[in-house]
Amino acid sequence: MFQSLRIACRLRPGVRFAATAPVQSVSSELAPRPQTAVLMMNMGGPSHPEDTGPFLQRLFQDRDIIELPGGPFVQKYLGEFIAKRRTPDVQAQYELIGGSPIRKWTEHQGEEMCKILDVKHPESAPHKAYTAFRYAHPLTDEALDEMEADGVRRVVAFSQFPQWSCTTSGSSLNELWRKVKERKMEANFDWSIIDRWPLHAGFIDAVSDRILTGLEQFDEADHHKVVILFSAHSVPMKVVNKGDHYVPEVAGSVKAVMDQLQTKWTNEGKRVPRHILAWQSKVGYLPWMVPSTADVIEGLGKRNSKHVLVVPVAFTSDHIETLYEIGMEYAEEAEEHGISHFKWTEGLNGSKVFINALADIVSTHLKSGELYSPQYKMKCIGCTKPLCRQIINPATSSTSN
Amino acid sequence: MFQSLRIACRLRPGVRFAATAPVQSVSSELAPRPQTAVLMMNMGGPSHPEDTGPFLQRLFQDRDIIELPGGPFVQKYLGEFIAKRRTPDVQAQYELIGGSPIRKWTEHQGEEMCKILDVKHPESAPHKAYTAFRYAHPLTDEALDEMEADGVRRVVAFSQFPQWSCTTSGSSLNELWRKVKERKMEANFDWSIIDRWPLHAGFIDAVSDRILTGLEQFDEADHHKVVILFSAHSVPMKVVNKGDHYVPEVAGSVKAVMDQLQTKWTNEGKRVPRHILAWQSKVGYLPWMVPSTADVIEGLGKRNSKHVLVVPVAFTSDHIETLYEIGMEYAEEAEEHGISHFKWTEGLNGSKVFINALADIVSTHLKSGELYSPQYKMKCIGCTKPLCRQIINPATSSTSN
Repeated sequence: MFQSLRIACRLRPGVRFAATAPVQSVSSELAPRPQTAVLMMNMGGPSHPEDTGPFLQRLFQDRDIIELPGGPFVQKYLGEFIAKRRTPDVQAQYELIGGSPIRKWTEHQGEEMCKILDVKHPESAPHKAYTAFRYAHPLTDEALDEMEADGVRRVVAFSQFPQWSCTTSGSSLNELWRKVKERKMEANFDWSIIDRWPLHAGFIDAVSDRILTGLEQFDEADHHKVVILFSAHSVPMKVVNKGDHYVPEVAGSVKAVMDQLQTKWTNEGKRVPRHILAWQSKVGYLPWMVPSTADVIEGLGKRNSKHVLVVPVAFTSDHIETLYEIGMEYAEEAEEHGISHFKWTEGLNGSKVFINALADIVSTHLKSGELYSPQYKMKCIGCTKPLCRQIINPATSSTSN
Repeated sequence: MFQSLRIACRLRPGVRFAATAPVQSVSSELAPRPQTAVLMMNMGGPSHPEDTGPFLQRLFQDRDIIELPGGPFVQKYLGEFIAKRRTPDVQAQYELIGGSPIRKWTEHQGEEMCKILDVKHPESAPHKAYTAFRYAHPLTDEALDEMEADGVRRVVAFSQFPQWSCTTSGSSLNELWRKVKERKMEANFDWSIIDRWPLHAGFIDAVSDRILTGLEQFDEADHHKVVILFSAHSVPMKVVNKGDHYVPEVAGSVKAVMDQLQTKWTNEGKRVPRHILAWQSKVGYLPWMVPSTADVIEGLGKRNSKHVLVVPVAFTSDHIETLYEIGMEYAEEAEEHGISHFKWTEGLNGSKVFINALADIVSTHLKSGELYSPQYKMKCIGCTKPLCRQIINPATSSTSN
């Protein structure tokens, strides 16, 4: 998320802009009124590199992800100023990767998930997926408009961050409640929330599956030499100190993936590769969660490791931190440090295992009648944000605590 | 482990010394020669408060757990000096808890585990447990002497820290290899290592079981109000930064425990309580892993939480950090912050579920023919310690990587 802040010091000039084609809305006037909306919430990214400016401005003005000194009023202007200064470098990075694919993948995942859901949980069919991005189109306002136009009442707010962080899932939900209140839509929709799913078996399967495919990039005889480097976006230690659950939940996902692979491989008489969890994309001078992915790559290179497989574990689609930072920046650094076989796994993107997992998460949620996970109400120590961990107009209050 | 460094500012004067009875060795001249030794490795603690001085001296002279400035030579004297200064306060804490129960529990666990092992894995029977503590009796030297006297060849070095840290399990194993080399015993024993078991199903069961028992201290009607506060010993961020696996492995244990409880409780139509992972016993001014247990207790109190259950998750027996720090110090702080129902779970101690888990870990290890876990050879980034992640005279080299 903060990749946008980093200076693209190795940009090659003259690289052509190669954005993905604009994605068409999937709504149709002929479709039956959806009984259940699934709101796919994520941070989003500029599908077209020229959208980078407004994307960065929303990001730097969001006090849930970054608190600039001087309070909310100052941040409005300071955020805009920083975003403007950063735009050329970050836009050039988006040009290198052909724009952010996150909208394309989120819409694909949502559509395919709903097809499975209609079969898996017909009681709440037809289901329709809507996308609400925090910093890019379609924004929360646009999703609310679309759901209203479709005449939807029951909405599952589905965080697309497998692990909770106040800086990501928290920011998306705060924005949702803020917009619902601002627009006096409190009574329009009945809400429940899927706020995290770090250990969901299907999600763990999907990551394991990507690792198995990723390992195919190495000679089978070299598999035991590979170091699996799980890389998640770092967070400031100030956030960790408040009791944000992101770091332990990411670690939980990693351990669950490796535990599953170890069971599978032991049954096949093979030895699971070594692994390490590291944290990427730190920005600024304050301490963030460590070890950093870059330091680990450098250290592995110095220790003469030649085979590294990077696995992004906290994001479900490819994005600038995978396509540019891992795929270009770290790849170049790895080469400099002598890692001759530096590979990375594709984001979950169009993975059928993953899309099945999404459908399973939603149908399990709907069957349970739960409003949110047991952890949703575990507000950070010292948090004073009024909307944080709220739910407006819950679909049912029977299971609330 | 660093509790010893903390000033016991609330000690009540005149508390009588109440050490546990000295524990007798379980070896007997009539017993058959053990075919397999299981070396229970842990940091240990002073069984008798008057042993606190030498215990602290060994701890402060150990550069695996704490690197004092000035190098190994300076640390020998500086460590002794600090230990002497700290002894009165720490000894008073040990007097309050009646001495460290870790030897009593480790010997009990080892004995009971071997009884199960003899039935579960007769191929390697008879099994005999030996104890090697890093800072208290019986020290590594004593364990080596005892194993030699018993004529043992095959030894499983079994770290009693469920999660790996270079500061604990790493230090114990480095000490083992150092002593084996110093005493020219390289050819005396055939070794394999159980270096970690953070997600072992039986261990997870044992912690869950303690939580279920711990919850019985609250009215059932209040269970949904309880916050489960997992507390692990903190580590310096310098250690985390090197890629030490302790933080992600502890988080993995916590998530596995909560995942298991959630499945169980959901099946029973109940809602699992909220939880948080925090880190205790920081010492000094450098940054350590956060949030701190004390800060979380204060924050929960300020937020009007009245029901807290503390669960130690990174140690298998009660020790000064549970009996004194949680049971006395934090309990007093919790009361000051208005937490009227502050409870904690007992260490795994004599838990039959846990002892069964220990036996299962060893028998699975023996059956697998593995020398160590896949992670054992994942040395920290920048580590230059020559003995770190070694194995001397491996029992078999067929599965080594």
